[in-house]
Amino acid sequence: MTKQKLHIVKIGGNIINDEALLTSFLKDFSALSTPKILIHGGGKKATELASIMGLKPKMINGRRITDEANLDIVTMVYAGLLNKKITAQLQKNGCNAMGLSGADANCILAHKRTVAAIDYGFAGDVDLVNSSTIKMFLKNNITPVFCAITHDKNGQLLNTNADTIASEIAIAMSGLYETELNYIFELKGVLESVEDKNSVIKHINSKKYKQLIKEGVISEGMLPKLHNCFSALEKGVQKVKIGDATLIKKENKLYTILSI
Amino acid sequence: MTKQKLHIVKIGGNIINDEALLTSFLKDFSALSTPKILIHGGGKKATELASIMGLKPKMINGRRITDEANLDIVTMVYAGLLNKKITAQLQKNGCNAMGLSGADANCILAHKRTVAAIDYGFAGDVDLVNSSTIKMFLKNNITPVFCAITHDKNGQLLNTNADTIASEIAIAMSGLYETELNYIFELKGVLESVEDKNSVIKHINSKKYKQLIKEGVISEGMLPKLHNCFSALEKGVQKVKIGDATLIKKENKLYTILSI
Repeated sequence: MTKQKLHIVKIGGNIINDEALLTSFLKDFSALSTPKILIHGGGKKATELASIMGLKPKMINGRRITDEANLDIVTMVYAGLLNKKITAQLQKNGCNAMGLSGADANCILAHKRTVAAIDYGFAGDVDLVNSSTIKMFLKNNITPVFCAITHDKNGQLLNTNADTIASEIAIAMSGLYETELNYIFELKGVLESVEDKNSVIKHINSKKYKQLIKEGVISEGMLPKLHNCFSALEKGVQKVKIGDATLIKKENKLYTILSI
Repeated sequence: MTKQKLHIVKIGGNIINDEALLTSFLKDFSALSTPKILIHGGGKKATELASIMGLKPKMINGRRITDEANLDIVTMVYAGLLNKKITAQLQKNGCNAMGLSGADANCILAHKRTVAAIDYGFAGDVDLVNSSTIKMFLKNNITPVFCAITHDKNGQLLNTNADTIASEIAIAMSGLYETELNYIFELKGVLESVEDKNSVIKHINSKKYKQLIKEGVISEGMLPKLHNCFSALEKGVQKVKIGDATLIKKENKLYTILSI
Protein backbone atom coordinates (compact mmCIF):
# COMPACT_ATOMS: atom_id res chain seq x y z
CA MET A 1 0.00 0.00 0.00
CA THR A 2 1.31 3.46 -0.84
CA LYS A 3 1.87 5.54 2.24
CA GLN A 4 0.15 8.91 2.57
CA LYS A 5 2.38 11.95 2.12
CA LEU A 6 3.49 13.99 5.14
CA HIS A 7 5.18 17.36 4.84
CA ILE A 8 7.44 18.45 7.73
CA VAL A 9 8.76 21.99 7.66
CA LYS A 10 11.28 23.62 9.99
CA ILE A 11 11.60 27.40 10.19
CA GLY A 12 14.15 29.41 12.12
CA GLY A 13 15.08 32.92 13.15
CA ASN A 14 15.19 34.45 9.67
CA ILE A 15 11.43 33.93 9.30
CA ILE A 16 10.44 34.32 12.95
CA ASN A 17 12.23 37.67 13.32
CA ASP A 18 10.50 39.13 10.25
CA GLU A 19 6.77 39.64 10.86
CA ALA A 20 5.85 40.19 7.20
CA LEU A 21 7.84 37.17 6.07
CA LEU A 22 6.32 35.02 8.83
CA THR A 23 2.77 36.07 7.88
CA SER A 24 3.41 35.28 4.22
CA PHE A 25 5.12 31.95 5.02
CA LEU A 26 2.27 30.85 7.32
CA LYS A 27 -0.21 31.50 4.48
CA ASP A 28 1.84 29.30 2.15
CA PHE A 29 2.19 26.64 4.85
CA SER A 30 -1.59 26.65 5.48
CA ALA A 31 -2.17 26.13 1.76
CA LEU A 32 -0.22 22.83 1.70
CA SER A 33 -2.84 20.20 1.04
CA THR A 34 -1.06 17.17 2.55
CA PRO A 35 -0.94 16.41 6.28
CA LYS A 36 1.81 18.60 7.71
CA ILE A 37 3.87 19.45 10.77
CA LEU A 38 5.65 22.72 11.52
CA ILE A 39 8.72 23.01 13.75
CA HIS A 40 9.93 26.45 14.74
CA GLY A 41 13.13 27.69 16.31
CA GLY A 42 13.48 30.68 18.57
CA GLY A 43 14.73 33.79 16.88
CA LYS A 44 16.05 36.82 18.67
CA LYS A 45 13.15 37.36 21.12
CA ALA A 46 14.57 35.06 23.80
CA THR A 47 17.90 36.92 23.68
CA GLU A 48 16.08 40.26 23.87
CA LEU A 49 14.03 39.13 26.85
CA ALA A 50 17.11 37.76 28.61
CA SER A 51 18.84 41.08 28.07
CA ILE A 52 15.85 43.07 29.44
CA MET A 53 15.91 40.78 32.47
CA GLY A 54 19.59 41.46 32.96
CA LEU A 55 20.74 37.96 32.07
CA LYS A 56 23.90 37.64 30.07
CA PRO A 57 24.05 34.80 27.55
CA LYS A 58 26.33 32.08 28.91
CA MET A 59 28.61 30.72 26.23
CA ILE A 60 31.32 28.08 26.37
CA ASN A 61 33.38 27.51 23.22
CA GLY A 62 30.78 29.45 21.24
CA ARG A 63 27.93 27.18 22.42
CA ARG A 64 25.07 28.59 24.43
CA ILE A 65 24.58 27.17 27.94
CA THR A 66 21.00 26.82 29.19
CA ASP A 67 20.93 27.56 32.91
CA GLU A 68 17.63 27.56 34.85
CA ALA A 69 16.87 31.25 34.26
CA ASN A 70 17.49 30.87 30.53
CA LEU A 71 15.39 27.71 30.39
CA ASP A 72 12.48 29.69 31.85
CA ILE A 73 13.00 32.35 29.22
CA VAL A 74 13.07 29.98 26.24
CA THR A 75 10.04 28.16 27.66
CA MET A 76 8.18 31.48 27.84
CA VAL A 77 9.26 32.70 24.42
CA TYR A 78 9.32 29.47 22.37
CA ALA A 79 6.44 27.49 23.95
CA GLY A 80 4.42 30.56 24.92
CA LEU A 81 4.70 33.68 22.79
CA LEU A 82 5.99 32.33 19.47
CA ASN A 83 4.18 28.99 19.49
CA LYS A 84 0.81 30.55 20.31
CA LYS A 85 1.18 33.49 17.91
CA ILE A 86 2.07 31.09 15.09
CA THR A 87 -0.82 28.80 16.04
CA ALA A 88 -3.32 31.69 16.12
CA GLN A 89 -2.15 32.90 12.70
CA LEU A 90 -2.42 29.41 11.19
CA GLN A 91 -5.93 29.10 12.67
CA LYS A 92 -6.80 32.40 10.97
CA ASN A 93 -5.64 30.86 7.68
CA GLY A 94 -7.93 27.88 8.15
CA CYS A 95 -5.16 25.49 9.20
CA ASN A 96 -6.19 23.58 12.35
CA ALA A 97 -2.86 24.12 14.10
CA MET A 98 -2.07 22.88 17.60
CA GLY A 99 1.01 24.21 19.37
CA LEU A 100 3.04 21.63 21.25
CA SER A 101 6.19 21.20 23.25
CA GLY A 102 7.71 17.76 23.60
CA ALA A 103 6.15 17.50 27.07
CA ASP A 104 2.62 17.82 25.68
CA ALA A 105 1.02 14.39 25.31
CA ASN A 106 4.58 13.13 25.84
CA CYS A 107 5.32 13.77 22.15
CA ILE A 108 9.10 14.11 22.43
CA LEU A 109 11.14 12.45 25.14
CA ALA A 110 14.68 13.63 25.71
CA HIS A 111 17.42 13.40 28.31
CA LYS A 112 19.57 16.14 29.74
CA ARG A 113 22.80 16.17 27.77
CA THR A 114 25.50 14.25 29.56
CA VAL A 115 28.13 16.44 31.14
CA ALA A 116 31.45 15.71 29.47
CA ALA A 117 33.97 18.44 28.65
CA ILE A 118 31.15 21.00 28.72
CA ASP A 119 28.04 21.19 30.91
CA TYR A 120 25.39 22.51 28.53
CA GLY A 121 22.89 22.86 31.37
CA PHE A 122 19.27 22.07 30.53
CA ALA A 123 19.95 21.04 26.95
CA GLY A 124 18.03 17.99 25.79
CA ASP A 125 19.02 15.23 23.39
CA VAL A 126 16.05 13.46 21.83
CA ASP A 127 15.42 9.82 22.79
CA LEU A 128 11.98 9.15 21.37
CA VAL A 129 9.28 10.75 19.23
CA ASN A 130 5.81 9.36 19.91
CA SER A 131 4.81 8.82 16.30
CA SER A 132 1.49 7.13 17.14
CA THR A 133 0.26 10.16 19.11
CA ILE A 134 1.36 12.53 16.35
CA LYS A 135 -0.34 10.28 13.77
CA MET A 136 -3.52 10.39 15.85
CA PHE A 137 -3.46 14.21 15.70
CA LEU A 138 -2.86 14.18 11.93
CA LYS A 139 -5.71 11.67 11.41
CA ASN A 140 -7.96 14.13 13.24
CA ASN A 141 -7.00 16.88 10.81
CA ILE A 142 -4.79 18.65 13.36
CA THR A 143 -1.50 20.25 12.29
CA PRO A 144 1.06 19.92 15.09
CA VAL A 145 3.28 22.98 15.58
CA PHE A 146 6.33 22.09 17.66
CA CYS A 147 8.56 24.49 19.52
CA ALA A 148 12.06 23.36 20.48
CA ILE A 149 11.30 22.44 24.11
CA THR A 150 11.26 18.78 25.17
CA HIS A 151 11.02 16.97 28.52
CA ASP A 152 12.59 14.00 30.28
CA LYS A 153 9.35 12.45 31.70
CA ASN A 154 10.80 13.23 35.11
CA GLY A 155 9.38 16.74 35.36
CA GLN A 156 12.26 18.52 33.65
CA LEU A 157 11.78 20.67 30.55
CA LEU A 158 14.78 20.80 28.20
CA ASN A 159 15.96 23.21 25.53
CA THR A 160 16.51 21.25 22.33
CA ASN A 161 17.91 22.13 18.93
CA ALA A 162 15.00 22.75 16.52
CA ASP A 163 16.83 21.29 13.51
CA THR A 164 17.37 18.07 15.45
CA ILE A 165 13.72 17.95 16.57
CA ALA A 166 12.66 18.32 12.93
CA SER A 167 14.87 15.46 11.75
CA GLU A 168 13.89 13.22 14.69
CA ILE A 169 10.18 13.81 14.03
CA ALA A 170 10.69 13.17 10.30
CA ILE A 171 12.59 9.95 11.01
CA ALA A 172 9.93 8.70 13.44
CA MET A 173 7.07 9.53 11.05
CA SER A 174 8.79 8.07 7.97
CA GLY A 175 7.67 4.56 8.97
CA LEU A 176 4.03 5.68 8.82
CA TYR A 177 4.06 8.26 6.02
CA GLU A 178 6.00 9.09 2.89
CA THR A 179 7.78 11.95 4.62
CA GLU A 180 9.26 15.07 3.07
CA LEU A 181 11.42 17.22 5.36
CA ASN A 182 12.10 20.87 4.51
CA TYR A 183 14.67 23.03 6.26
CA ILE A 184 13.98 26.68 5.66
CA PHE A 185 16.75 29.19 6.33
CA GLU A 186 18.03 32.50 5.03
CA LEU A 187 19.54 31.21 1.77
CA LYS A 188 17.96 29.77 -1.37
CA GLY A 189 19.86 26.53 -0.76
CA VAL A 190 23.41 25.29 -0.42
CA LEU A 191 25.48 27.74 -2.41
CA GLU A 192 28.40 27.04 -4.75
CA SER A 193 29.72 30.48 -3.85
CA VAL A 194 28.66 32.61 -0.85
CA GLU A 195 29.04 35.72 -3.01
CA ASP A 196 26.31 34.60 -5.40
CA LYS A 197 22.99 34.06 -3.67
CA ASN A 198 21.59 32.31 -6.73
CA SER A 199 24.45 29.81 -7.08
CA VAL A 200 22.29 27.09 -5.57
CA ILE A 201 23.59 23.54 -5.84
CA LYS A 202 20.34 21.90 -6.88
CA HIS A 203 21.20 18.36 -5.91
CA ILE A 204 23.59 16.93 -3.34
CA ASN A 205 24.00 13.21 -2.74
CA SER A 206 26.17 11.58 -0.07
CA LYS A 207 29.16 11.43 -2.36
CA LYS A 208 28.91 15.08 -3.39
CA TYR A 209 28.27 16.01 0.27
CA LYS A 210 31.63 14.56 1.33
CA GLN A 211 33.33 16.20 -1.65
CA LEU A 212 31.82 19.63 -0.82
CA ILE A 213 33.01 19.35 2.78
CA LYS A 214 36.50 18.48 1.55
CA GLU A 215 36.46 21.46 -0.83
CA GLY A 216 35.30 23.76 1.97
CA VAL A 217 32.13 24.74 0.08
CA ILE A 218 30.04 23.49 3.01
CA SER A 219 31.29 25.54 5.90
CA GLU A 220 30.66 25.79 9.64
CA GLY A 221 27.01 26.83 9.95
CA MET A 222 25.90 24.48 7.19
CA LEU A 223 27.68 21.43 8.58
CA PRO A 224 25.25 20.54 11.42
CA LYS A 225 22.29 21.45 9.19
CA LEU A 226 23.36 19.09 6.42
CA HIS A 227 24.38 16.47 8.94
CA ASN A 228 20.74 16.48 10.17
CA CYS A 229 19.49 16.22 6.59
CA PHE A 230 21.65 13.21 5.71
CA SER A 231 20.98 11.58 9.06
CA ALA A 232 17.23 11.84 8.32
CA LEU A 233 17.67 10.36 4.83
CA GLU A 234 19.83 7.50 6.11
CA LYS A 235 17.18 6.69 8.71
CA GLY A 236 14.32 6.47 6.24
CA VAL A 237 13.02 9.96 5.46
CA GLN A 238 12.02 9.87 1.80
CA LYS A 239 12.84 13.43 0.71
CA VAL A 240 14.82 16.35 2.17
CA LYS A 241 15.00 19.87 0.75
CA ILE A 242 16.75 22.98 2.01
CA GLY A 243 15.95 26.52 0.91
CA ASP A 244 14.46 29.90 1.80
CA ALA A 245 10.92 30.90 2.83
CA THR A 246 9.62 30.36 -0.71
CA LEU A 247 10.66 26.67 -0.65
CA ILE A 248 7.12 25.43 0.00
CA LYS A 249 5.59 27.51 -2.81
CA LYS A 250 4.64 25.30 -5.74
CA GLU A 251 6.16 27.65 -8.31
CA ASN A 252 9.56 27.71 -6.60
CA LYS A 253 12.20 25.60 -8.30
CA LEU A 254 15.33 27.03 -6.67
CA TYR A 255 16.38 24.97 -3.66
CA THR A 256 18.77 22.16 -2.77
CA ILE A 257 17.42 18.63 -2.80
CA LEU A 258 19.41 16.05 -0.89
CA SER A 259 19.65 12.31 -1.42
CA ILE A 260 21.78 9.40 -0.29
CA MET B 1 -27.07 5.12 28.62
CA THR B 2 -25.21 6.47 31.63
CA LYS B 3 -22.69 9.10 30.64
CA GLN B 4 -19.06 8.63 31.61
CA LYS B 5 -17.79 10.85 34.42
CA LEU B 6 -15.55 13.84 33.66
CA HIS B 7 -13.73 15.79 36.35
CA ILE B 8 -12.86 19.42 35.56
CA VAL B 9 -10.63 21.24 38.05
CA LYS B 10 -9.65 24.90 38.07
CA ILE B 11 -6.67 26.11 40.10
CA GLY B 12 -5.55 29.69 40.67
CA GLY B 13 -2.76 31.76 42.14
CA ASN B 14 -2.85 30.29 45.65
CA ILE B 15 -1.63 26.95 44.28
CA ILE B 16 0.46 28.21 41.38
CA ASN B 17 2.47 30.60 43.57
CA ASP B 18 3.35 27.85 46.08
CA GLU B 19 5.71 25.28 44.55
CA ALA B 20 5.27 22.65 47.27
CA LEU B 21 1.48 22.98 47.20
CA LEU B 22 1.45 22.78 43.40
CA THR B 23 3.61 19.63 43.40
CA SER B 24 1.34 17.97 45.95
CA PHE B 25 -1.84 19.06 44.15
CA LEU B 26 -0.58 17.75 40.80
CA LYS B 27 0.07 14.36 42.40
CA ASP B 28 -3.51 14.25 43.70
CA PHE B 29 -4.83 15.41 40.33
CA SER B 30 -2.85 12.72 38.50
CA ALA B 31 -4.35 10.10 40.81
CA LEU B 32 -7.93 10.92 39.75
CA SER B 33 -9.09 7.85 37.87
CA THR B 34 -11.82 9.45 35.72
CA PRO B 35 -11.12 11.42 32.53
CA LYS B 36 -10.13 14.89 33.63
CA ILE B 37 -9.29 18.42 32.53
CA LEU B 38 -7.19 21.00 34.38
CA ILE B 39 -7.58 24.75 33.96
CA HIS B 40 -5.02 27.04 35.53
CA GLY B 41 -4.92 30.75 36.18
CA GLY B 42 -1.87 32.92 36.22
CA GLY B 43 -0.54 33.70 39.65
CA LYS B 44 1.95 36.41 40.45
CA LYS B 45 4.62 35.53 37.84
CA ALA B 46 3.06 37.64 35.08
CA THR B 47 2.97 40.67 37.40
CA GLU B 48 6.59 40.03 38.43
CA LEU B 49 7.71 39.76 34.81
CA ALA B 50 5.79 42.90 33.84
CA SER B 51 7.48 44.73 36.70
CA ILE B 52 10.97 43.52 35.67
CA MET B 53 10.20 44.70 32.14
CA GLY B 54 9.20 48.10 33.48
CA LEU B 55 5.52 47.78 32.65
CA LYS B 56 3.06 49.16 35.13
CA PRO B 57 -0.21 47.28 35.55
CA LYS B 58 -2.98 49.25 33.85
CA MET B 59 -6.11 49.32 35.95
CA ILE B 60 -9.46 51.03 35.36
CA ASN B 61 -12.02 50.83 38.18
CA GLY B 62 -9.96 48.08 39.79
CA ARG B 63 -10.03 45.91 36.62
CA ARG B 64 -6.83 45.02 34.84
CA ILE B 65 -6.48 46.24 31.25
CA THR B 66 -4.64 43.97 28.82
CA ASP B 67 -2.65 46.08 26.39
CA GLU B 68 -0.41 44.49 23.75
CA ALA B 69 2.71 44.36 25.93
CA ASN B 70 0.77 42.74 28.78
CA LEU B 71 -0.86 40.26 26.38
CA ASP B 72 2.62 39.16 25.30
CA ILE B 73 3.58 38.71 28.95
CA VAL B 74 0.54 36.62 29.91
CA THR B 75 1.00 34.55 26.75
CA MET B 76 4.60 33.87 27.76
CA VAL B 77 3.86 33.15 31.41
CA TYR B 78 0.49 31.36 31.21
CA ALA B 79 0.78 29.48 27.90
CA GLY B 80 4.56 29.05 28.13
CA LEU B 81 6.18 28.79 31.53
CA LEU B 82 3.29 27.72 33.76
CA ASN B 83 1.44 25.54 31.27
CA LYS B 84 4.56 23.60 30.27
CA LYS B 85 5.90 23.25 33.84
CA ILE B 86 2.53 21.88 34.97
CA THR B 87 2.36 19.57 31.96
CA ALA B 88 5.89 18.23 32.57
CA GLN B 89 5.09 17.58 36.24
CA LEU B 90 1.86 15.76 35.37
CA GLN B 91 3.77 13.66 32.82
CA LYS B 92 6.21 12.76 35.59
CA ASN B 93 3.24 11.56 37.66
CA GLY B 94 2.06 9.31 34.84
CA CYS B 95 -0.78 11.60 33.75
CA ASN B 96 -0.69 12.06 29.95
CA ALA B 97 -1.18 15.82 30.14
CA MET B 98 -1.27 18.10 27.11
CA GLY B 99 -1.00 21.85 27.61
CA LEU B 100 -3.34 23.95 25.50
CA SER B 101 -4.43 27.49 24.91
CA GLY B 102 -7.78 28.17 23.31
CA ALA B 103 -6.02 28.74 19.98
CA ASP B 104 -4.61 25.20 19.92
CA ALA B 105 -6.77 22.94 17.74
CA ASN B 106 -9.27 25.84 17.95
CA CYS B 107 -10.42 24.57 21.36
CA ILE B 108 -11.81 27.84 22.71
CA LEU B 109 -13.12 30.60 20.48
CA ALA B 110 -13.60 34.04 21.98
CA HIS B 111 -14.12 37.61 20.87
CA LYS B 112 -12.39 40.76 22.06
CA ARG B 113 -14.58 42.28 24.73
CA THR B 114 -16.74 45.03 23.27
CA VAL B 115 -15.62 48.49 24.26
CA ALA B 116 -18.37 50.10 26.32
CA ALA B 117 -17.64 52.30 29.33
CA ILE B 118 -14.23 50.63 29.66
CA ASP B 119 -11.83 49.34 27.00
CA TYR B 120 -10.39 46.19 28.55
CA GLY B 121 -7.92 45.78 25.69
CA PHE B 122 -7.17 42.23 24.60
CA ALA B 123 -9.62 40.60 26.98
CA GLY B 124 -11.61 37.75 25.50
CA ASP B 125 -15.16 36.63 26.18
CA VAL B 126 -15.77 32.98 25.31
CA ASP B 127 -18.08 32.20 22.36
CA LEU B 128 -17.54 28.49 21.84
CA VAL B 129 -15.77 25.49 23.34
CA ASN B 130 -15.02 22.75 20.80
CA SER B 131 -16.30 19.87 22.88
CA SER B 132 -15.83 17.28 20.12
CA THR B 133 -12.09 18.02 19.83
CA ILE B 134 -11.69 17.91 23.63
CA LYS B 135 -13.65 14.64 23.73
CA MET B 136 -11.32 13.22 21.06
CA PHE B 137 -8.33 14.04 23.29
CA LEU B 138 -9.99 12.44 26.34
CA LYS B 139 -10.88 9.31 24.34
CA ASN B 140 -7.19 9.04 23.47
CA ASN B 141 -6.29 9.09 27.16
CA ILE B 142 -4.96 12.66 27.00
CA THR B 143 -5.59 15.09 29.88
CA PRO B 144 -6.03 18.63 28.49
CA VAL B 145 -4.41 21.36 30.61
CA PHE B 146 -5.79 24.76 29.64
CA CYS B 147 -4.23 28.11 30.37
CA ALA B 148 -6.40 31.20 30.28
CA ILE B 149 -5.49 32.36 26.77
CA THR B 150 -8.05 32.11 23.96
CA HIS B 151 -8.18 33.35 20.35
CA ASP B 152 -10.68 34.94 17.96
CA LYS B 153 -9.90 32.75 14.88
CA ASN B 154 -8.72 35.95 13.25
CA GLY B 155 -5.13 35.71 14.47
CA GLN B 156 -5.65 37.50 17.77
CA LEU B 157 -4.82 35.89 21.12
CA LEU B 158 -6.97 37.05 24.03
CA ASN B 159 -6.52 37.08 27.80
CA THR B 160 -9.53 35.35 29.34
CA ASN B 161 -10.70 34.79 32.89
CA ALA B 162 -9.70 31.28 34.00
CA ASP B 163 -12.84 30.79 36.14
CA THR B 164 -14.99 31.57 33.11
CA ILE B 165 -12.98 29.22 30.89
CA ALA B 166 -13.50 26.45 33.46
CA SER B 167 -17.27 26.96 33.58
CA GLU B 168 -17.56 27.28 29.78
CA ILE B 169 -15.59 24.05 29.26
CA ALA B 170 -17.69 22.30 31.91
CA ILE B 171 -20.93 23.50 30.29
CA ALA B 172 -19.81 22.40 26.82
CA MET B 173 -18.68 18.98 28.06
CA SER B 174 -21.78 18.35 30.18
CA GLY B 175 -23.72 17.24 27.12
CA LEU B 176 -21.19 14.45 26.53
CA TYR B 177 -20.13 13.52 30.07
CA GLU B 178 -21.50 13.57 33.59
CA THR B 179 -19.40 16.57 34.49
CA GLU B 180 -18.12 17.62 37.90
CA LEU B 181 -16.56 21.08 38.12
CA ASN B 182 -14.22 21.98 41.00
CA TYR B 183 -13.05 25.49 41.78
CA ILE B 184 -9.99 25.43 43.98
CA PHE B 185 -9.02 28.57 45.83
CA GLU B 186 -7.40 29.65 49.10
CA LEU B 187 -10.33 28.80 51.40
CA LYS B 188 -11.92 25.50 52.43
CA GLY B 189 -15.18 26.65 50.87
CA VAL B 190 -17.72 29.44 51.19
CA LEU B 191 -17.42 30.58 54.80
CA GLU B 192 -20.19 31.52 57.20
CA SER B 193 -17.70 33.84 58.89
CA VAL B 194 -14.41 35.10 57.40
CA GLU B 195 -12.85 34.92 60.87
CA ASP B 196 -13.37 31.15 61.09
CA LYS B 197 -11.61 29.27 58.31
CA ASN B 198 -13.50 26.09 59.17
CA SER B 199 -16.98 27.68 59.08
CA VAL B 200 -17.61 26.14 55.67
CA ILE B 201 -21.18 26.25 54.39
CA LYS B 202 -21.37 22.69 53.12
CA HIS B 203 -24.28 23.13 50.77
CA ILE B 204 -25.60 26.15 48.92
CA ASN B 205 -28.59 25.99 46.58
CA SER B 206 -29.94 28.85 44.44
CA LYS B 207 -32.30 29.99 47.17
CA LYS B 208 -29.61 30.04 49.84
CA TYR B 209 -27.22 31.71 47.37
CA LYS B 210 -29.58 34.68 46.95
CA GLN B 211 -30.12 34.80 50.71
CA LEU B 212 -26.36 34.80 51.44
CA ILE B 213 -25.83 37.65 48.98
CA LYS B 214 -28.59 39.62 50.68
CA GLU B 215 -27.04 38.95 54.10
CA GLY B 216 -23.62 40.03 52.83
CA VAL B 217 -22.05 36.64 53.66
CA ILE B 218 -21.03 36.28 50.01
CA SER B 219 -18.90 39.33 49.39
CA GLU B 220 -17.06 40.90 46.48
CA GLY B 221 -14.41 38.33 45.52
CA MET B 222 -16.79 35.40 45.92
CA LEU B 223 -19.57 36.93 43.82
CA PRO B 224 -18.13 36.32 40.33
CA LYS B 225 -16.81 32.91 41.44
CA LEU B 226 -20.21 31.73 42.63
CA HIS B 227 -21.89 33.36 39.65
CA ASN B 228 -19.74 31.09 37.43
CA CYS B 229 -20.68 28.07 39.55
CA PHE B 230 -24.43 28.66 39.34
CA SER B 231 -24.22 29.59 35.67
CA ALA B 232 -22.53 26.21 35.04
CA LEU B 233 -25.21 24.36 37.03
CA GLU B 234 -28.05 26.14 35.27
CA LYS B 235 -26.53 25.25 31.90
CA GLY B 236 -26.28 21.54 32.61
CA VAL B 237 -23.12 20.84 34.65
CA GLN B 238 -24.06 18.02 37.00
CA LYS B 239 -21.97 18.86 40.07
CA VAL B 240 -20.00 21.91 41.28
CA LYS B 241 -17.74 22.06 44.33
CA ILE B 242 -15.60 24.85 45.70
CA GLY B 243 -12.78 24.39 48.21
CA ASP B 244 -9.02 24.41 48.83
CA ALA B 245 -6.20 22.32 47.33
CA THR B 246 -7.31 19.22 49.25
CA LEU B 247 -10.74 19.29 47.55
CA ILE B 248 -9.88 16.50 45.12
CA LYS B 249 -8.49 14.21 47.82
CA LYS B 250 -10.92 11.35 48.48
CA GLU B 251 -10.66 11.70 52.26
CA ASN B 252 -11.55 15.40 52.23
CA LYS B 253 -15.11 16.15 53.30
CA LEU B 254 -14.82 19.88 53.98
CA TYR B 255 -15.88 21.92 50.95
CA THR B 256 -18.92 23.71 49.60
CA ILE B 257 -21.17 21.82 47.22
CA LEU B 258 -23.49 23.90 45.07
CA SER B 259 -26.81 22.98 43.53
CA ILE B 260 -29.73 24.68 41.82
